[in-house]
Amino acid sequence: MKKFAVVLAGCGVFDGAEIHEATLTMLAIMKQGATYEVFAPDIQQHHVLNHLTGEEMKEKRNVLIESARIARGKIKDLKNYEANNFDALIFPGGFGVAKNLCDFAFKGADCKINPDVEKAILKTASKNKPIGALCISPVILAKIFGDVEVTIGQDKGTAEGIEKMGSTHVRTTHGEVIIDEKNNLFTTPCYMLDANIVQIAEGAENIVRAMMGRMK
Amino acid sequence: MKKFAVVLAGCGVFDGAEIHEATLTMLAIMKQGATYEVFAPDIQQHHVLNHLTGEEMKEKRNVLIESARIARGKIKDLKNYEANNFDALIFPGGFGVAKNLCDFAFKGADCKINPDVEKAILKTASKNKPIGALCISPVILAKIFGDVEVTIGQDKGTAEGIEKMGSTHVRTTHGEVIIDEKNNLFTTPCYMLDANIVQIAEGAENIVRAMMGRMK
Repeated sequence: MKKFAVVLAGCGVFDGAEIHEATLTMLAIMKQGATYEVFAPDIQQHHVLNHLTGEEMKEKRNVLIESARIARGKIKDLKNYEANNFDALIFPGGFGVAKNLCDFAFKGADCKINPDVEKAILKTASKNKPIGALCISPVILAKIFGDVEVTIGQDKGTAEGIEKMGSTHVRTTHGEVIIDEKNNLFTTPCYMLDANIVQIAEGAENIVRAMMGRMK
Repeated sequence: MKKFAVVLAGCGVFDGAEIHEATLTMLAIMKQGATYEVFAPDIQQHHVLNHLTGEEMKEKRNVLIESARIARGKIKDLKNYEANNFDALIFPGGFGVAKNLCDFAFKGADCKINPDVEKAILKTASKNKPIGALCISPVILAKIFGDVEVTIGQDKGTAEGIEKMGSTHVRTTHGEVIIDEKNNLFTTPCYMLDANIVQIAEGAENIVRAMMGRMK
């Protein structure tokens, strides 16, 4: 049975992992006959946002502990990820990706990637196993690889950031998957477009199917 | 277009709404051509649990604000729910239902129901519109109505609590929906059974389909 590692960035679209994208990625994996384990870095969130008002809350939360809410407690520190034990690595989206897994939300093309995230991606790539990224997550691939082809949908500012990092942005709409053949990378826009939950399910199914098709 | 009101109990299986059940209920509604609005009571959570360790955290969180994470900010105070504006009311599960929406987790058959939850259910029932409950949520219907037929799957202690409140518990397995014809109530076990995420998606689809079939 093929096994995905799913990497989360917290729990909630505005400061963590986007919950629908995370849940529907797990659903897509299992529906297509594969299985998964969930990972997150053991670091403090950049900040905590009240998802009702959008205002910052005077709290501190931990990315691994909050991600455990989506994973129902079954989650591991990303430090312990071993590429040898998995067939693919996939990143659902959410602003937490651009705030916790890297700082693209604040620094754009000059962003830094969390070391555990970068190591997980490089180790997976070194074995030429597929890496998937939904929503805003492709910015991490653009930063690490520097010359890849990805999509985040149609957002002009983000697309310009990706081009500035040396990569090529492909404009897409709901459910489309861009495949970088050379590096075995898969990206799809999800909630980077104005989307509904059925479109997110389709995007997740399409990217997982594309990745499954390239596994050895 | 038919419209559901979805009521959440926080964000996370152990102290709030079960995230997969909540997400997959919304997906099932939209996949079947209906729409939804999300509600939660504006109250403090009973407690906050670290979902990685299971331990209580010295924090306070609000049910409405945390539920907003699952709803991507589009959520209303349950106080403002008007049964006239909806065709059905549905409760995903999670321990938060038994800790925040009522206190069944602590008091069993002697539990009290949150007044906003009780009012929403009674107003919906008074118009004979379908009410759905996943996972542990059927205990609320058993308490309010006292003589209904529901399922929470196979958990002996919870089933006994339901019988003690005067209702009938029907033993079920994955994806089955019990319909109380007289009161127009729909229940399905989801994660009250040892289930995987595909089985949760099936349970959510089946209960939503059954409810859609009974709408006027």
